[in-house]
Amino acid sequence: MTDQVEELERPAENTSSGDDYVDLTPEYAREILDALGDDDVSRAEELISELHFADIADLLGWASSSQRAKLVDLIRPDFDPELLTELDDELREEVISLLGTEAVAEAISELDSDDVVEVVEYLEEEDQKELLGALSDIERARVEEALSYPEYTAGRIMQRELVAIPDYWSVGQTIDFLRSAKNLPDDFYDIIVVDPRYSPVGIVPLSRAIRTNRPVLIRDVMDTENMRTVVVTEEQENVAHLFRQRDLISAPVVDDTGRLVGVITVDDVVDVIDEEYEEDMMRLAGVGEEDDLSSAIFDTTRSRFTWLLVNLFTAIAASMVISVFEGTIQQLVALAVLMPIVASMGGNAGTQTLTVAVRAIATRELTSTNAWRVIRKEVAVCGLNGLAFAVLTGAVTWFWFDDGLLGAVIGAAMIINLLFAGLFGALIPLGLERAGIDPAVSSSVFLTTITDVVGFFAFLGLAATFLL
Amino acid sequence: MTDQVEELERPAENTSSGDDYVDLTPEYAREILDALGDDDVSRAEELISELHFADIADLLGWASSSQRAKLVDLIRPDFDPELLTELDDELREEVISLLGTEAVAEAISELDSDDVVEVVEYLEEEDQKELLGALSDIERARVEEALSYPEYTAGRIMQRELVAIPDYWSVGQTIDFLRSAKNLPDDFYDIIVVDPRYSPVGIVPLSRAIRTNRPVLIRDVMDTENMRTVVVTEEQENVAHLFRQRDLISAPVVDDTGRLVGVITVDDVVDVIDEEYEEDMMRLAGVGEEDDLSSAIFDTTRSRFTWLLVNLFTAIAASMVISVFEGTIQQLVALAVLMPIVASMGGNAGTQTLTVAVRAIATRELTSTNAWRVIRKEVAVCGLNGLAFAVLTGAVTWFWFDDGLLGAVIGAAMIINLLFAGLFGALIPLGLERAGIDPAVSSSVFLTTITDVVGFFAFLGLAATFLL
Repeated sequence: MTDQVEELERPAENTSSGDDYVDLTPEYAREILDALGDDDVSRAEELISELHFADIADLLGWASSSQRAKLVDLIRPDFDPELLTELDDELREEVISLLGTEAVAEAISELDSDDVVEVVEYLEEEDQKELLGALSDIERARVEEALSYPEYTAGRIMQRELVAIPDYWSVGQTIDFLRSAKNLPDDFYDIIVVDPRYSPVGIVPLSRAIRTNRPVLIRDVMDTENMRTVVVTEEQENVAHLFRQRDLISAPVVDDTGRLVGVITVDDVVDVIDEEYEEDMMRLAGVGEEDDLSSAIFDTTRSRFTWLLVNLFTAIAASMVISVFEGTIQQLVALAVLMPIVASMGGNAGTQTLTVAVRAIATRELTSTNAWRVIRKEVAVCGLNGLAFAVLTGAVTWFWFDDGLLGAVIGAAMIINLLFAGLFGALIPLGLERAGIDPAVSSSVFLTTITDVVGFFAFLGLAATFLL
Repeated sequence: MTDQVEELERPAENTSSGDDYVDLTPEYAREILDALGDDDVSRAEELISELHFADIADLLGWASSSQRAKLVDLIRPDFDPELLTELDDELREEVISLLGTEAVAEAISELDSDDVVEVVEYLEEEDQKELLGALSDIERARVEEALSYPEYTAGRIMQRELVAIPDYWSVGQTIDFLRSAKNLPDDFYDIIVVDPRYSPVGIVPLSRAIRTNRPVLIRDVMDTENMRTVVVTEEQENVAHLFRQRDLISAPVVDDTGRLVGVITVDDVVDVIDEEYEEDMMRLAGVGEEDDLSSAIFDTTRSRFTWLLVNLFTAIAASMVISVFEGTIQQLVALAVLMPIVASMGGNAGTQTLTVAVRAIATRELTSTNAWRVIRKEVAVCGLNGLAFAVLTGAVTWFWFDDGLLGAVIGAAMIINLLFAGLFGALIPLGLERAGIDPAVSSSVFLTTITDVVGFFAFLGLAATFLL
């Protein structure tokens, strides 16, 4: 295999490659972009022709917008519409407008319905209409039906192309049917067995179908135990949980009467898993989901502004606590020096708890069943660390300011703040979840408000009481 | 379908169910645990018998350790070894010791090799030996070979059971072979085509094999374009990226001579994706990966202590900056009141940038190709928000303390700190990545040290210069 590669003089090839494409390394990308910069079109064309469409999608993401326009011109002749499914929403819109809706409309008629939905769902209405207009009537009806389901539900990620057969067929009949059928999905992994009402009653994994002798009846090989149907309005998050928990490869989708309307495959679910995680991570940091690398500076600024504004209010709230103790600080400036330590330790300990809780709620390891036990544990953990850091911080303070009582005060404040951090680090996401709100949203800003306010209040309050 | 459910009087059934199992809702779990608490074993047994093993695994996670012991006793008779693959490492160890290694050893001989590896890899050596001893020689050799590969590589997640055929076979020959073969994997999605040296040269997706007429030669239907081989020592993170980027369902794994040694399927990759995300999220919050809900209080406390200790040092560093300005604060206590606002806004704006960067590096949207453009953009975004919040905070300060100059000083400090926040929020993860360190590790502590130090220094320094 290595010899072969050298013969062909591939510019870059990494160890995991096995297909006929070159891996897109940053160096390879740099080479292409440099060729574009030098207006060496034929060199750039040659380099790009070695790339898989998924790598070209990555390259489009790394390029600046002027480079992107040049790249799109180069890929136009051999344009693979699947590339569009690999792009972020904003990037996709840009690439579609660079390609021109006419060219795109023609290309996407090759795609399965779930891919078409992915490409068009967030486009502006006019563009969407134009693209859908190029599809065949059947195909367009399928896509429009998909778009009629709410966002983030099974109906949006399923494909309509599927293989469904009755249970009285034999394996041989099934194979003959598949050999002669038109309009089958590009890839499928399970044959869905339906009853006369077109409700799924079982699945036959292809690996089982292909190993079974022709005369055997489908009803005798079908798997009813491991089939899970999904209702078309189910939230995609729950679909992802189901696939992950049951290690599914595909699942039939039914409407509310139980009729088979589509199938969801694991590759769509992997995308959902990515999205859901990204959402949690971003929400914990107060970043909007639409905040892609490719968003415009002003859009990004605006989307982050809201979170920072909320944070400004909570920071002012914490400052108001401090201002209550202005007199105390005036008498003992060491308090101003030390107070951020208490607040910061509380914030960090609380964030640890919060992150564990948000994550455990998402994976359903944390539910109402074990909520109290987890809360007790988190408070205990933070309390123990509070104790350890009370001793440490107390000792540092004593040594630094030569004031044992000041050390005792900061130690006590530390314990109090970390107990609150553990308690609210667990309570906040659980409370949001119970209220039907994503536990990642605004959790951290609530939490740091509490650890700042409690931290400043405990430290300055104890100091005012015992030191002056 | 609904009628059927009611007929059988299933205690809890949600809309997405379609198999013969009951969904494990928190209420259903509560019912089981209550039955256990009342020592109503037959009721608990009845309820549990309706559950899929993956749900029993969830239930074990939600239970307290005493409830867990009772649950294990109940599932012992019908124990499905696949359940063990669904548990977290610590929980798995506990359940195995409750079941007894002998019982487990017998059960796991039914599993595919990748599942056995998952069950035994983190057990103590003695337990591991005992479990492996119960396997057949071939099976044990397979598992031991897998364990000889480094952790987190393709070799650990692949299965040895696979279907490989030469390219000169016909489709008919292949189907006949599959019908008569023993020792095939439980499930497979692609047939791997190998050359005489047992190197993969292509794959035949089952959906293609089953649709092709018997006389057609494998070499004429095999897919060489979409086959990607993975080297056995490749890091699992890269494998996950490959599957996600190419929408793969399975990929052949080869050793360093190019010989086929195993196959990785998408369900294993979904687990890897979960792990990698969890790692990023946890590392950003300074939580160890071994910090499961089921970890003991003391272990959790210790694992979080280290991060808090690092944070204590950085908090003390920030305090030292403040202590330089003790005299200034004594003269103008308002500074002590306001200084946390500047630091906090910097920390939050920096965390937004940091999270976007860490995430983009993980998905490879951010590489050296576009690093400078992203850094410039992040600095611009933070700078613009710095400007907005300079005006806002300055106005609030002016109003609050009736001091316009103080408002100007806090505004200037805000802009400076947010510029640093944007710069280092992007630079730190990129620098760690370039140094070969996971960009999520310690990023946030570096960042908040910078935003605290810069925030306090800029605000108090400007105040000392212009206000006194």
